[in-house]
Amino acid sequence: MIVSSSLPEELPAILDASRSVGVFTAEEIATVQELFEGYQRDPVASGYNFLSCTEGGQLLGFACWGPTALSKGAADLYWICTARSAQGRGVAAALLRAVEDAVRAAGRWLIVIWTSSRPDYEPARRFYQRAGCELQTQITDFYDRGEDLCVFVRRLDR
Amino acid sequence: MIVSSSLPEELPAILDASRSVGVFTAEEIATVQELFEGYQRDPVASGYNFLSCTEGGQLLGFACWGPTALSKGAADLYWICTARSAQGRGVAAALLRAVEDAVRAAGRWLIVIWTSSRPDYEPARRFYQRAGCELQTQITDFYDRGEDLCVFVRRLDR
Repeated sequence: MIVSSSLPEELPAILDASRSVGVFTAEEIATVQELFEGYQRDPVASGYNFLSCTEGGQLLGFACWGPTALSKGAADLYWICTARSAQGRGVAAALLRAVEDAVRAAGRWLIVIWTSSRPDYEPARRFYQRAGCELQTQITDFYDRGEDLCVFVRRLDR
Repeated sequence: MIVSSSLPEELPAILDASRSVGVFTAEEIATVQELFEGYQRDPVASGYNFLSCTEGGQLLGFACWGPTALSKGAADLYWICTARSAQGRGVAAALLRAVEDAVRAAGRWLIVIWTSSRPDYEPARRFYQRAGCELQTQITDFYDRGEDLCVFVRRLDR
């Protein structure tokens, strides 16, 4: 299992992985595609970076992160996604470690993770907490009535 | 004093107002310009809206806000800025009310305000608190070492 920068030809597999987990809306999948295309055009100008976790040429999962605009220290982690068929094998943990390394290499010290309070995101929230991310705050009704924003923070300098 | 959607020809006055307050960095002023140009090209696609507060054709201040991506309820308030020469006259309060009206008209119920813990932002933080915004959380060292992110929330449905 290796993690490296995503290649243009991985887009279909990335969209398949996004669909396979069953929690992304159509709008979110369209956003994954839009950000991926921006990243492939110009990683710096787009502000987005994609990492792929693969094994024998097969995509197991991906992560998308970017330096936070107007901040020297923060990076946003937009998604970590493991294809349903690859779950339970440590793919998300490998991707998170790679994101941490990339954020450190960019001279930043703080990863901010935006996620939902929806029940189907419970495994994601548990993953972040086990991985040393702290729930910083929860903003009621942020995404929709009854769906809060959960903000996790991972500090790389402590 | 009236508040209305910003016009293309107001850009120089908006940049002058940004510079006059003495807290915006050069990078932030460049960002104001970039977002303003995006807004003038296509308000919907850009995701940004600018409101100007004027009197007798003179710009007293401006606000920039936008619906939060992937959220049904939230809007981001990026800046409210009163030109130094117009301070103390209720310009920011008039702009905040206009933003609240626009967010309500967009069917959203939550305004999220991102600001800095720096001492020179103390008047801004006091303004938001007096205006009914609650400090939701403060993320240490977010902008830089020693410069936190303060997140205020204004709920329009309570």
